[in-house]
Amino acid sequence: MVVPNLPAAELLDYYRGPAADVYFQHAVHTLAGAGLDPVVTMEFFCDRAGVLCGMREALSVLQEALGGEGEVWALDEGAPMEAREVVLRVRSRYSLIGCLETALLGLLASSSGWATAAREVVEAAAGTPVISFGARHVHPLVGPVMEHAAVVGGCAGCATPLGAKLAGLPRPSGTMPHAMILLFGDTVKAALAFDQLMPGDVPRIVLVDTFKDEAEEALRVARALGDRLRGVRLDTPMERGRVTVELVKEVRARLDQAGHREVGIFVSGGLDAPRVRQFVAAGAPVNSFGVGMAIASAPPIGFTADVKEVAGEPRAKRGRIPGLTPNPRLHRML
Amino acid sequence: MVVPNLPAAELLDYYRGPAADVYFQHAVHTLAGAGLDPVVTMEFFCDRAGVLCGMREALSVLQEALGGEGEVWALDEGAPMEAREVVLRVRSRYSLIGCLETALLGLLASSSGWATAAREVVEAAAGTPVISFGARHVHPLVGPVMEHAAVVGGCAGCATPLGAKLAGLPRPSGTMPHAMILLFGDTVKAALAFDQLMPGDVPRIVLVDTFKDEAEEALRVARALGDRLRGVRLDTPMERGRVTVELVKEVRARLDQAGHREVGIFVSGGLDAPRVRQFVAAGAPVNSFGVGMAIASAPPIGFTADVKEVAGEPRAKRGRIPGLTPNPRLHRML
Amino acid sequence: MVVPNLPAAELLDYYRGPAADVYFQHAVHTLAGAGLDPVVTMEFFCDRAGVLCGMREALSVLQEALGGEGEVWALDEGAPMEAREVVLRVRSRYSLIGCLETALLGLLASSSGWATAAREVVEAAAGTPVISFGARHVHPLVGPVMEHAAVVGGCAGCATPLGAKLAGLPRPSGTMPHAMILLFGDTVKAALAFDQLMPGDVPRIVLVDTFKDEAEEALRVARALGDRLRGVRLDTPMERGRVTVELVKEVRARLDQAGHREVGIFVSGGLDAPRVRQFVAAGAPVNSFGVGMAIASAPPIGFTADVKEVAGEPRAKRGRIPGLTPNPRLHRML
Amino acid sequence: MVVPNLPAAELLDYYRGPAADVYFQHAVHTLAGAGLDPVVTMEFFCDRAGVLCGMREALSVLQEALGGEGEVWALDEGAPMEAREVVLRVRSRYSLIGCLETALLGLLASSSGWATAAREVVEAAAGTPVISFGARHVHPLVGPVMEHAAVVGGCAGCATPLGAKLAGLPRPSGTMPHAMILLFGDTVKAALAFDQLMPGDVPRIVLVDTFKDEAEEALRVARALGDRLRGVRLDTPMERGRVTVELVKEVRARLDQAGHREVGIFVSGGLDAPRVRQFVAAGAPVNSFGVGMAIASAPPIGFTADVKEVAGEPRAKRGRIPGLTPNPRLHRML
Amino acid sequence: MVVPNLPAAELLDYYRGPAADVYFQHAVHTLAGAGLDPVVTMEFFCDRAGVLCGMREALSVLQEALGGEGEVWALDEGAPMEAREVVLRVRSRYSLIGCLETALLGLLASSSGWATAAREVVEAAAGTPVISFGARHVHPLVGPVMEHAAVVGGCAGCATPLGAKLAGLPRPSGTMPHAMILLFGDTVKAALAFDQLMPGDVPRIVLVDTFKDEAEEALRVARALGDRLRGVRLDTPMERGRVTVELVKEVRARLDQAGHREVGIFVSGGLDAPRVRQFVAAGAPVNSFGVGMAIASAPPIGFTADVKEVAGEPRAKRGRIPGLTPNPRLHRML
Amino acid sequence: MVVPNLPAAELLDYYRGPAADVYFQHAVHTLAGAGLDPVVTMEFFCDRAGVLCGMREALSVLQEALGGEGEVWALDEGAPMEAREVVLRVRSRYSLIGCLETALLGLLASSSGWATAAREVVEAAAGTPVISFGARHVHPLVGPVMEHAAVVGGCAGCATPLGAKLAGLPRPSGTMPHAMILLFGDTVKAALAFDQLMPGDVPRIVLVDTFKDEAEEALRVARALGDRLRGVRLDTPMERGRVTVELVKEVRARLDQAGHREVGIFVSGGLDAPRVRQFVAAGAPVNSFGVGMAIASAPPIGFTADVKEVAGEPRAKRGRIPGLTPNPRLHRML
Repeated sequence: MVVPNLPAAELLDYYRGPAADVYFQHAVHTLAGAGLDPVVTMEFFCDRAGVLCGMREALSVLQEALGGEGEVWALDEGAPMEAREVVLRVRSRYSLIGCLETALLGLLASSSGWATAAREVVEAAAGTPVISFGARHVHPLVGPVMEHAAVVGGCAGCATPLGAKLAGLPRPSGTMPHAMILLFGDTVKAALAFDQLMPGDVPRIVLVDTFKDEAEEALRVARALGDRLRGVRLDTPMERGRVTVELVKEVRARLDQAGHREVGIFVSGGLDAPRVRQFVAAGAPVNSFGVGMAIASAPPIGFTADVKEVAGEPRAKRGRIPGLTPNPRLHRML
Repeated sequence: MVVPNLPAAELLDYYRGPAADVYFQHAVHTLAGAGLDPVVTMEFFCDRAGVLCGMREALSVLQEALGGEGEVWALDEGAPMEAREVVLRVRSRYSLIGCLETALLGLLASSSGWATAAREVVEAAAGTPVISFGARHVHPLVGPVMEHAAVVGGCAGCATPLGAKLAGLPRPSGTMPHAMILLFGDTVKAALAFDQLMPGDVPRIVLVDTFKDEAEEALRVARALGDRLRGVRLDTPMERGRVTVELVKEVRARLDQAGHREVGIFVSGGLDAPRVRQFVAAGAPVNSFGVGMAIASAPPIGFTADVKEVAGEPRAKRGRIPGLTPNPRLHRML
Repeated sequence: MVVPNLPAAELLDYYRGPAADVYFQHAVHTLAGAGLDPVVTMEFFCDRAGVLCGMREALSVLQEALGGEGEVWALDEGAPMEAREVVLRVRSRYSLIGCLETALLGLLASSSGWATAAREVVEAAAGTPVISFGARHVHPLVGPVMEHAAVVGGCAGCATPLGAKLAGLPRPSGTMPHAMILLFGDTVKAALAFDQLMPGDVPRIVLVDTFKDEAEEALRVARALGDRLRGVRLDTPMERGRVTVELVKEVRARLDQAGHREVGIFVSGGLDAPRVRQFVAAGAPVNSFGVGMAIASAPPIGFTADVKEVAGEPRAKRGRIPGLTPNPRLHRML
Repeated sequence: MVVPNLPAAELLDYYRGPAADVYFQHAVHTLAGAGLDPVVTMEFFCDRAGVLCGMREALSVLQEALGGEGEVWALDEGAPMEAREVVLRVRSRYSLIGCLETALLGLLASSSGWATAAREVVEAAAGTPVISFGARHVHPLVGPVMEHAAVVGGCAGCATPLGAKLAGLPRPSGTMPHAMILLFGDTVKAALAFDQLMPGDVPRIVLVDTFKDEAEEALRVARALGDRLRGVRLDTPMERGRVTVELVKEVRARLDQAGHREVGIFVSGGLDAPRVRQFVAAGAPVNSFGVGMAIASAPPIGFTADVKEVAGEPRAKRGRIPGLTPNPRLHRML
Repeated sequence: MVVPNLPAAELLDYYRGPAADVYFQHAVHTLAGAGLDPVVTMEFFCDRAGVLCGMREALSVLQEALGGEGEVWALDEGAPMEAREVVLRVRSRYSLIGCLETALLGLLASSSGWATAAREVVEAAAGTPVISFGARHVHPLVGPVMEHAAVVGGCAGCATPLGAKLAGLPRPSGTMPHAMILLFGDTVKAALAFDQLMPGDVPRIVLVDTFKDEAEEALRVARALGDRLRGVRLDTPMERGRVTVELVKEVRARLDQAGHREVGIFVSGGLDAPRVRQFVAAGAPVNSFGVGMAIASAPPIGFTADVKEVAGEPRAKRGRIPGLTPNPRLHRML
Repeated sequence: MVVPNLPAAELLDYYRGPAADVYFQHAVHTLAGAGLDPVVTMEFFCDRAGVLCGMREALSVLQEALGGEGEVWALDEGAPMEAREVVLRVRSRYSLIGCLETALLGLLASSSGWATAAREVVEAAAGTPVISFGARHVHPLVGPVMEHAAVVGGCAGCATPLGAKLAGLPRPSGTMPHAMILLFGDTVKAALAFDQLMPGDVPRIVLVDTFKDEAEEALRVARALGDRLRGVRLDTPMERGRVTVELVKEVRARLDQAGHREVGIFVSGGLDAPRVRQFVAAGAPVNSFGVGMAIASAPPIGFTADVKEVAGEPRAKRGRIPGLTPNPRLHRML
């Protein structure tokens, strides 16, 4: 992981100590006092279907924790998973992993929730690229983690530099905020300054809903920037009825009538899978969708860890079937 | 913040840099190139009602960022807030805060979502203590942050050491996991070892659903530990119908009939506000509720930051009313 | 009635002849052949509650038809009526009224339906004036009739000259259509010409959603016309999200901030009672509502005419109770 | 049009003057004062799918208004139309048509609403003829217009002489009203008089629910009129449960058992498409359906007229795409 | 019980033997083999609220079975009971009652279900008498049992002689069936014969919907029987729309207009509580309601018997609380 | 029928007398007084689709009543029937059958209702045997009748000796009740005594939810009885979440892991068709289902008897078609 730039060992200490549910520490303490440390097999399963994410981080933590002992089987990062499917199986002395249960479950829960929500939006978009820009809706320590998960779920880009790096993308995606246009006091002035001052590899995409009706502003900007304009972004606020299918079609038609056929249209503002489906079904000529809250607010997918074998013997609590759960999709990771 | 134990200045760099939406960096770069850096007033408002949380972190970041310049007004950590209420107002040169918008919004969004969900459960419990133990459902970097928010929302305890510390509680809450009992192979054996080995200030609360019917096991444990038993925990799995009102009443009655009136009953397992309300309405004799996913999976509350004044003049984008929004509840923080 | 400017006798012929259901003509013909023409009492009742309208026209037709014979009792134009209440009772030789049943029922049905729908919208507006302008949604022969009914139901104005005359209003209500602004090519140009050329008693109310965002255009027009501007009309199309509560509040705020506190706001576009209630509940500062389809498309209220006495004896068909239905609200009209 | 028997020029004056929304008159007045009268192209589209009706009247008005100038394209009377399809396009100097917008829209709105509702009922009847007799539910000036639209929508007959004439039918449809039977005091007496006195081309169809149970009365009438009886009409009132599938089947069976297999059964009374579908689905032997309110109360279909070109240049208001909307189904009418 | 006219001892043998669930016989056999026959306390509770019925029969069976041993507490026949309330408690050697559980539960289940449904209809009737005549909808061995329960639930009469006897009524209620009128071929002929031939204490109530419309037939019958006519019964079939509020009002009005104010109106045909409520709410002048299927088809109320003490010690299965359930409403019966 | 062991003649007297609706006795008395006793044809039809049951009893009653006169056509016991299908036709002098209508209808109504409900559950079980044990939910005079109907509807077994006899089964089905285990105080002790003392042809099926968790108890019992154990019964109470799919799968797995693959699993407790479908859909390894209330509480199917011919002439009341209803499925029974 990234923020802390901590060595893996320190991170492991954090996960086993201040970030672990204290009753796991009770267990390890009591077992040690009783002289018990058998090899156990634990299985981790999800409570609903989705896209598995967070496994890369989980395996990294396990590698540090096991130090060469034990065995780990898992599904791959990004794999689809069914409800109650076992996605991870760890066999080791209990003392090595007992206090890691909180962290391992949490790594999978958050990221799988985000990746699954992203997958739904991406499928709704039916081929039109979707950009995740919801970092503002989660704690900044995990904003880039969320964006990585969104890309694992199918997003074509994300907004923060670290999110892009985690996801292996060449650079983050972004245009300009309303604040910049408000400070310039006019969209065309802002657009000209942006065009003049930004490096060449930043696409000239101008936000056109700050001061004027979007159709009018789009034509003013297109006249001002000419061929250098890559696209306009529509982010119409709720108070003006959000971006509608008809608005996109009209802006497209008016740009085309004025000869600006190469200018793309980028849509954002309260989008979720049902609204994206409406744009697609209506044939709205959208070049990309920007989605924030619909991915960032995805509920985590609950994971559960079960002891299934103790010292080679099948054992489980009431409600679970003792012994290993067959899953041929798992493969040996460590 | 805690995990990284980073100096405030490094954390500020992280928030403005790798964790910031890149278009804010475009804005700051372009404005600087154009020689513009006016004093602006930004207002932050929430998109739905709830409990404000994350403000303590937000103010700490702003203090570092402003370095004595500017002014900040806000509501207090834990304050109730109405839909679309302005909870934070910052006046400063734009260059000092432009790139912090992502982080500030995210700090408020996640924590306010969790605190608001906790409040709902706590109100449902009508006076019976609620313990948060959902750290396992969020990324471990923010597990303790979530638990702090749960306590701000009214929870009486939480499960991780760092969560307890952030929330100013003397110690985390926790009993023993199923894993420990499975490794001992018998609940009574596990309970006796726990009693013998744990420090005296850890309450003896024993999980009684691992191997046997809860009523039978509760009586076995009570016989074995006698007066030292503080309580039993019911965490019946879904496969056995979860904990029901009737189960709690029966365990209470059987404990009472055997003379164990002082033994408390702690309930957990898939609880949310509606289920807690059912226990309360039916008069089930519960001594405390443990709640995980219902708080941890709370969607963030969306916050929005608006430029409302530029160089002392009211200015706003379409859809927003220029100038300051009156809110007598705000007070000067910095 | 008005269109034809026909003498009452010609209109009566029309109603009894080409516009009458032919089976009434069969009845009159057969009865005459059989030498039967008793005095009958017919009662007219409505099938649902509402506002009675059309009675003025009905009484005028009956006066011409009875020529001094017979008796007529009725409720007043505009009276509230309950479901299945008798609103009209006619006693005369059958031959005088037999062929008028179609016309009398139709006069009451259409107008009572419109007046009832208008009443619902007017009540939703809670004191803010409502203007009917739905003539375009009904056949032009009855457009002014519909507008008269809307005023009977409580509307403060209507849009056609004949409608206003029928309703006893000094003049019709109206501003300017989009077409006029489109032909001028600019809203301010159109507004200045309108102000210069229209008689002084026509209020200067300017439509501000044709070319630009409403808030921007409202300010341009207010600057151009100054004190002479009575109001702006918001008629935002569906493609731009229709007029919202927030739009009205923002336009009001921006006009006020620029010193145009006397300029009113007139709202139209797809309004019906539920949407009007939303504006009222949210405290949107609307000066009047324009309503079209919600009144014009009101279904007619069904009326039924029953023979209840023949030659002084109670008589009725199966399903109806013979003899007069007591209704102390009826009073003698002819 | 018919009632007024006005010369086309007088009707045109009525439509442009007292029946027009006054703001169109403001527009024409202001434009004239400003010396503007460009050639414009206006397009008329519907807001929902249905059967186009009223176009014959609309074209007649336009012919008078244009006096040979300009061009008109349209769909045919009775054509199916899709939601938001352009059904009429007019190119002319604005002064010729500006004040006609209210009338043209209204002509199409009412009649298309009625024709569309009739189509639904006719399709429900699956081949059994449907007769419109709802003139009593609309203002008598438009009763025959409504019946014409019902026939355009597929009805096989209608009840008023003028309605039949407008629709090109040889004669109106009708039997005898309850009033006639009540005045005779007995259904058989009434039927015999009707048979003796009515011209030979009026079918002998007798209403059989006035005094006695329908099955009993049908047999009495059939015995009395013998071969001359064309059919019986069932119009059972709501108080007797309306006409049911079982009643039709029983009357059919009892008539057949008594040898009256040639006597038809005509059903009326509160019929709408769902009830007609029930009769058809249950195989009830109905010879024709009489439908009133279900057609007469159809809401109008909203039409909108948009300026799309001014002096040969594409131009439109916000929300609409400037220039002509392609529709290959339109053909030149004037 | 009645049908068999069996001595109590034979009935007891039937209940313990061929009519008992065989596993109770297994239990008694095994316990006897093991030499176990402790005194047990069994409690019987209902699974939903209602009117307790069948207790009279249950106590009679218990008296025979216990032969003076043991103790029985219970609620009274006809008492209201809450969901899960203990309504019967038996203490005795297990061998005396073990095989009676099926019968005791069944006696309470069927009758309590019927009484509870009757209560709902009776309450709906708000004081107008309700007659139960649903014996035809249950097996004839229990038809009179059902009628007894209906009277316990509040019905004023029932239709079978044995039902009336069980319920302590002087005689059963009944008029004449359609069959009798069909055999006479005319309602008036049938009524006259009935009046002439039936004993004086049978009220002259004549069914008036067999051949003619009810209103017509009611007047014919009233003219024929004069003062001797106690009432008319309306039982209009579904094919004629069942009896409606309007029909009752019209028949009442027509009888009154002809001077037959003393003739009552008795309504039947598919009545249930909601329909009865409609008649009452609409003020229909009904003199009594006849209800069949709505009572006869009532689902039984499930009862459960639990061992709660064995040899004086609290004992119960999982899910139940050992020991007696406090219920001060119980009183000693045997 | 069975309980009373009455001679057929006495039963007939009971059905015609104390158990008959008294108005049929009025009819027979009046007709006799008037000297009328024609041969009539009566048809019996059902008001909804289902499985016909009770016909065997009905034909037995008719045979006794007709004494060789008349004719009877019917469908077979157990035949499927459509809504309103004629299932029985009787031709005889009216005096022979007039007073039997209540009994004949009731015999068919109750049993057809039960058989139809059983059919639905049996179809839900998709081949897994269903045992009826709901005798405790109906009056014990008809408990065995209900069980017979359940077998006609497809059940593989039932619980009372007389029910089994009526249904032609070799013996009733049953294990052991909770009461027996409670009296022994331990499930294994009870099971051992049962095994030792019961005849060899009673399958050793042990109830395993009385004192301990089902999985634990099932293993204890299996160890104790070894090969002699035929199965375990799961009847988990509502307070413990009822039997779930997961519980069945886990008990199966734990039995298999311990080598008890031949031990079956029998499931009961609040089962109805939807819950049975869930078990089947989820592949739960159930060996048989025990169903009580879902069959026993089935509402009766209403039957109606109509006179359709009198002395060879078609005749019927209003609402019915005179004469015989064609139904080629009927065949001559008597």
